[in-house]
Amino acid sequence: MDRIAIVGLGLIGGSLALSLRDRKAPYRVLGVDLDPQTLRLAKEAGAIEQGAHPDEAPLDSCDLVVLATPAADLMEAILPVARRMRPAAVLTDVCGAKEAVCGRGAQQDRVVFVGAHPMAGTEFRGFAAAMPSLFQSATVAICPAVGRAEGRAQADSAVRALWTSAGAASLLDVDAATHDRAVTYASHLPYLAAAAVVEALRDASDSELARALAAGGFRDTTRLAGDGTVSGAAALNRHIPTAARDLSVALRALADELESHPARALERLGKLADERRRMKLPKPR
Amino acid sequence: MDRIAIVGLGLIGGSLALSLRDRKAPYRVLGVDLDPQTLRLAKEAGAIEQGAHPDEAPLDSCDLVVLATPAADLMEAILPVARRMRPAAVLTDVCGAKEAVCGRGAQQDRVVFVGAHPMAGTEFRGFAAAMPSLFQSATVAICPAVGRAEGRAQADSAVRALWTSAGAASLLDVDAATHDRAVTYASHLPYLAAAAVVEALRDASDSELARALAAGGFRDTTRLAGDGTVSGAAALNRHIPTAARDLSVALRALADELESHPARALERLGKLADERRRMKLPKPR
Repeated sequence: MDRIAIVGLGLIGGSLALSLRDRKAPYRVLGVDLDPQTLRLAKEAGAIEQGAHPDEAPLDSCDLVVLATPAADLMEAILPVARRMRPAAVLTDVCGAKEAVCGRGAQQDRVVFVGAHPMAGTEFRGFAAAMPSLFQSATVAICPAVGRAEGRAQADSAVRALWTSAGAASLLDVDAATHDRAVTYASHLPYLAAAAVVEALRDASDSELARALAAGGFRDTTRLAGDGTVSGAAALNRHIPTAARDLSVALRALADELESHPARALERLGKLADERRRMKLPKPR
Repeated sequence: MDRIAIVGLGLIGGSLALSLRDRKAPYRVLGVDLDPQTLRLAKEAGAIEQGAHPDEAPLDSCDLVVLATPAADLMEAILPVARRMRPAAVLTDVCGAKEAVCGRGAQQDRVVFVGAHPMAGTEFRGFAAAMPSLFQSATVAICPAVGRAEGRAQADSAVRALWTSAGAASLLDVDAATHDRAVTYASHLPYLAAAAVVEALRDASDSELARALAAGGFRDTTRLAGDGTVSGAAALNRHIPTAARDLSVALRALADELESHPARALERLGKLADERRRMKLPKPR
């Protein structure tokens, strides 16, 4: 039975541990977290076999290590963690930006690094928000192995097996650069737009009334703004500044058109509404 | 028992008729729609007592008429419909922009006009999408009566009784100008941002992959973009062009900050995430 470490038992790492537990996956899980309370909760829940502080975790006893901390910490942890692992073991991660992360993983050759990105999340965080069903039917993007040259095929298989064990329905092989361009539009840009809309409401002169009138549309449009994990990944995505500036220009053009040629603007919006309704998107859980 | 007409049996008008039916409200409902098939379906569902084409509907037999057509048509219908109604009857509407609509209602003195706006909707449309629970626990904004000077208090009571009968939990008295400023942030701006995000995804070079990676975050952020009823109201809201331009500037600033001062940008986004999580918003149905 493989021994794996999950570093960071928040929403994503915690849900991974819980889903492996629920699905009786053949892993012995070492949970690694800064917070002793989180380690205690995870152990009580049967999500991990053993808990450890990052400084003391016996990472050299693991066949595979999953980095599941927030994006900026995760980037900084890649090389130090690799140095503490057994040579030829497998290091993987869950970050939503892959070019920067896989680039960092390629800066060592002690372990094989396989970047992954499970496309799932909620607006809550911490182990308390973790749930065993989070990755049920999810898509997980898997990037080409980098780092150590030997054992890349086995490392890729090990990461695929991990996510299949956690309930993922679809594993998507994609290079890091292509991944980042695609999540720009699928995730990071929607996130930034949601955050800007929340900021606009907060700063509006009739903010209290606006909150009272906010219905399901506002709730859904801005749900992603409450997700604490996307911002760090968006900050690591080199496509984001340009894409956000393009979105800014598009919004301004839409505002101008609504004023100067409302009928034309409404036709454009009607077509977008039809396209949105036709998109095949995952069902709400 | 009051006889009322509902003009436009789409998502909103159809749901109003169905909710009155389900709650056994004391109204005899005349359904008015251009589409004979819609009238047939509504009659078969027991949502209306009688159906009629707009040109032939006996509006002068009604105590109250509810305009529930798309915003641009609704604006144009106010004066012609008022002319066909019994003097001193009540005319009301469901449009999401109230300043323009109530202004039009004030241009006649044959009937009392009471603008209303039920804060509920889905991304689907037509009578097929109507549901009796749509207004369950909803907030309805009610604007001061205009038009005919006599009978305004009774007209206001009649419109309030209608929405309470349909299941609304909260009736909010608000003048039209204040309403429009507030829904700018609660509804119209989130809608435009959602539409711009859908457009960005559609026009992205890796659009197919981006669609494959689009998860729940994208689904929720852009759900409102599929709502066919918001765009017309947004086009009638005089605050929208300025607010959308401000949002465009904020997005651009966020993009610049993510590039030049990522730590500061992440702190700002983290605060917004906390604020969003603290907002009291209606539960998903």
